[in-house]
Amino acid sequence: MATITELKARVADLERQLADALQTKSAPNRGKITQMSAEVVDSNPYSRLMALKRMGIVENYERIRDFTVAVVGVGGVGSVTAEMLTRCGIGKLLLFDYDKVELANMNRLFYQPHQAGMSKVEAAERTLKEINPDVEFEVYNYNITTTENFDHFQGRIKQGGIGGDKPVDLVLSCVDNFEARMAINMACNECDQKWFESGVSENAVTGHIQFLIPGETACFACAPPLVVASKIDEKTLKRDGVCAASLPTTMGVVAGFLVQNVLKYLLQFGDVSYYLGYNAMLDFFPRMILKPNPQCDDSYCKKRQTEFQAREATRPKVQVEITEAEVVHEDNEWAIEIVSETTADELAAAEGDQPELTKGVRVAYTTPAPTQGGDQDATVQDSGQSLDDLMKQMQGL
Amino acid sequence: MATITELKARVADLERQLADALQTKSAPNRGKITQMSAEVVDSNPYSRLMALKRMGIVENYERIRDFTVAVVGVGGVGSVTAEMLTRCGIGKLLLFDYDKVELANMNRLFYQPHQAGMSKVEAAERTLKEINPDVEFEVYNYNITTTENFDHFQGRIKQGGIGGDKPVDLVLSCVDNFEARMAINMACNECDQKWFESGVSENAVTGHIQFLIPGETACFACAPPLVVASKIDEKTLKRDGVCAASLPTTMGVVAGFLVQNVLKYLLQFGDVSYYLGYNAMLDFFPRMILKPNPQCDDSYCKKRQTEFQAREATRPKVQVEITEAEVVHEDNEWAIEIVSETTADELAAAEGDQPELTKGVRVAYTTPAPTQGGDQDATVQDSGQSLDDLMKQMQGL
Repeated sequence: MATITELKARVADLERQLADALQTKSAPNRGKITQMSAEVVDSNPYSRLMALKRMGIVENYERIRDFTVAVVGVGGVGSVTAEMLTRCGIGKLLLFDYDKVELANMNRLFYQPHQAGMSKVEAAERTLKEINPDVEFEVYNYNITTTENFDHFQGRIKQGGIGGDKPVDLVLSCVDNFEARMAINMACNECDQKWFESGVSENAVTGHIQFLIPGETACFACAPPLVVASKIDEKTLKRDGVCAASLPTTMGVVAGFLVQNVLKYLLQFGDVSYYLGYNAMLDFFPRMILKPNPQCDDSYCKKRQTEFQAREATRPKVQVEITEAEVVHEDNEWAIEIVSETTADELAAAEGDQPELTKGVRVAYTTPAPTQGGDQDATVQDSGQSLDDLMKQMQGL
Repeated sequence: MATITELKARVADLERQLADALQTKSAPNRGKITQMSAEVVDSNPYSRLMALKRMGIVENYERIRDFTVAVVGVGGVGSVTAEMLTRCGIGKLLLFDYDKVELANMNRLFYQPHQAGMSKVEAAERTLKEINPDVEFEVYNYNITTTENFDHFQGRIKQGGIGGDKPVDLVLSCVDNFEARMAINMACNECDQKWFESGVSENAVTGHIQFLIPGETACFACAPPLVVASKIDEKTLKRDGVCAASLPTTMGVVAGFLVQNVLKYLLQFGDVSYYLGYNAMLDFFPRMILKPNPQCDDSYCKKRQTEFQAREATRPKVQVEITEAEVVHEDNEWAIEIVSETTADELAAAEGDQPELTKGVRVAYTTPAPTQGGDQDATVQDSGQSLDDLMKQMQGL
């Protein structure tokens, strides 16, 4: 039988274990930090970021705290995107998703098995607040594509910035379907909101990011997104026990590209990529710029194009007189301009098993069948130009 | 004074509380899965990976369970590397590190503030086992560069494979210093062990991975590692309150590239990159192959080169007769061959502020001063060829 001494030792031991277990689980791990410091001590979570100033990369890293970013979709790419921004000390994050965490998500980074069943936005907010209590969060567990939610979503883009009465600085699309991308595109065109698109193909081995500036670059409705990707119709993917493949590697790389370009844009260093693709089979990385389509179906896109051209026309040019020639690509209906470091040979090398499209370039997402989204589908068809023609035109440039 | 009954009740109560606390924290969240299934249900953590078979990417995904990977250094790149492999369902992981988790690490992915003070390998093992209880772990909290630890490390490379009496399948170097890289290089040359090198520059905006096959590609001692990176001497970085910068983005991308190429190599799909660089400022990605240096200072490297040439000579060639010409690059002392998709212009575009080196190519790591590692430093100098000459020679190819 146990003696009093033994039992007391057991109690003390259990109390210590319990304190440990509770402490490591949910207690706040550090207080808020009011000002970012560059001091090099083990206890400073910002020392390695503030070092970017000393290294001559970023002029004023602290500015990151002034920025608000909305992340739409916190799955394989969006959750890692939100984590990277949180660890970088972004001022505020808005997260939108309507999905739940499942064990089937465990082949990608971020979520843990004990979160299965929780809403993704709640699980993400909880983890991210533990990682960095300095970041402000707003999370919405809803589908942005319904009419009511869309209005609310658009309201948060317009007024979700730090302080509550200014727009967010960037919207990041990390969704996995065409409808949600079109909803983000519509909202951002109307709000004149800069945003980044991201995507990973259904075979898990290609992905891309794209920077969309209303009026200045192609919007999501201007042209079918061009990417080295498979052409599987995403509508068919979740039916009949069939599911798309995914890999933590491809999604981690795409999230890394996305946040890196967000940091470059917000903190003004390096060159922001307008389109950056990733073909994991070949380690091939196409880059290009897509100009907006003057015949775009989205009326706000056309409005932004007019505004942009007016701004450009009045902006003083350095050593270049403003002439008719300033209107770019008048005879190029799609106004697509490839500014790419890749050669035609490289593009050809990246092609796969899609004989109906021009070598090297494939469609990232198939548009829904006419019965499901005739208006959107018409974006391509109303132009009187087939996708194949478009691809040929692009390659000819 | 407490009675035995009271103490027993207290013990029972504490045991229950502790069980609760541990359950939500670290109890296994799912049982082990004996066989990977492709069934598409929310509860199957492998459904999206097994879908790679259906998508025609990987022939036999289940084989991943037969492989063992050693990760040396579980910091910003190594921890994410280990997490990706764990989520992919790798058979076994060996982790080596001697560092502790600090709040100053929180600007990179993986570790959480509540783990501050724990050894990195212990914190990593705990998190990774929660994520995937099917993976087998062996962790070592020591510095591989001391004589005693080096011998043990090399023993684990030779016998750490699944089952206990075969070598690991790959070693991944995710360390942050020259000495540790040289130790891994030495061990892998001696054991004839394939390995991947990885690195991120001290200014946080460039990185690379490199695949090293003893005798077939350049070893780490054959040539100074070539990468678009800054030339800051890492010896000076941790002194005098100065610290290197780091970003979760760059490290996440490098870990993604690393594990993607590990998967391609182990599961035999796509093209494995021998060298892949990442310049985050320009979104520029140099690729190349480096052949071994016949005058390498590492005697095991030269032994492996001889063995490789003998194997090549006896291997039946398809439609090519074996002739003297098969001995490659006899008159190219460095035997460096660039097989790159990048053009000279692109290389030039990637160069920065290092006038003493040829445009576009810079040294990833500075070698220690002669007093610290004269023998290693001599690798370059004994060749009677300056680094500048070497770079010129490379660009001329």
